[in-house]
Amino acid sequence: MIRKASDCKKEYRETMRGGNGTVEITNFASPEELNNKGRLFANITLKPGCSIGYHVHEKDSELFYLMKGNALYNDNGVEVSVSAGDVMLCPAGTGHAIANNGEEDAELCAVIVYA
Amino acid sequence: MIRKASDCKKEYRETMRGGNGTVEITNFASPEELNNKGRLFANITLKPGCSIGYHVHEKDSELFYLMKGNALYNDNGVEVSVSAGDVMLCPAGTGHAIANNGEEDAELCAVIVYA
Repeated sequence: MIRKASDCKKEYRETMRGGNGTVEITNFASPEELNNKGRLFANITLKPGCSIGYHVHEKDSELFYLMKGNALYNDNGVEVSVSAGDVMLCPAGTGHAIANNGEEDAELCAVIVYA
Repeated sequence: MIRKASDCKKEYRETMRGGNGTVEITNFASPEELNNKGRLFANITLKPGCSIGYHVHEKDSELFYLMKGNALYNDNGVEVSVSAGDVMLCPAGTGHAIANNGEEDAELCAVIVYA
C-alpha cells in the first residue's frame, strides 16, 4: 500500500514536552500498521530554535535517525551534539530531549516500539 | 545512547532478492534495541539502476519512507512510481520490490516489525 506524502497525517505540537516553538510531526503509519508492536513511525521536523523538552519513556523505547541538520540531544541527562546521519536511542526507563540549535531545519525519522 | 553515523553497521548486498546491483544497508539498531518487536531500522540506499527483487513478507511487515530520490515500487504485484516523501507499506502476507529508476540515489528509511 502506498501513502503519498500529501496523504500522511500531520500534527503541529506547540511547546511539546515543555520545549520551545512548534514541532511538526508527519505520521507514516498507524499503530495497527505497526502490528501494534509500536506506536510511531514518523518524520519529526524542528525548525531552528525549536525543541522537544525532556521526558522519560516509561513503557516504550524511541529511536531517532537524524536525516538532516544538527541538534543538541539530551541523552538521559547528558547533552551531546548530533549531526545528520547520527542515531539516538532512548530505551524504556530512560529520558531524552532534543533541540535544533542549528541554522537549518532538523529532520528526524522516529520510531517508537513498546517495551 | 548515541550511535554516530560512522559507527552504524553497514552491509552491502549483491543482487538482493534477485534484484540488480548492490544494495547498501546502514543498520541503526539491533533487534534487541527494538525490544524484539521488530528486526530492522535502517537506511537502504539504492544507486541508479539498483533494485531489491520481489519477495513476500510472511511473518513480519516492512514499512519504507522514501527520504530521497525516485523509485518504481512493486506493491504486491502492482507497479507504482514513488518519489521522496512517499510511504510504502508491505503488511505480513503481501509482497514487494523496489527499483531505483531515477538518476540520483534513492534513500529509504526502513522498519520491519513482527506480525
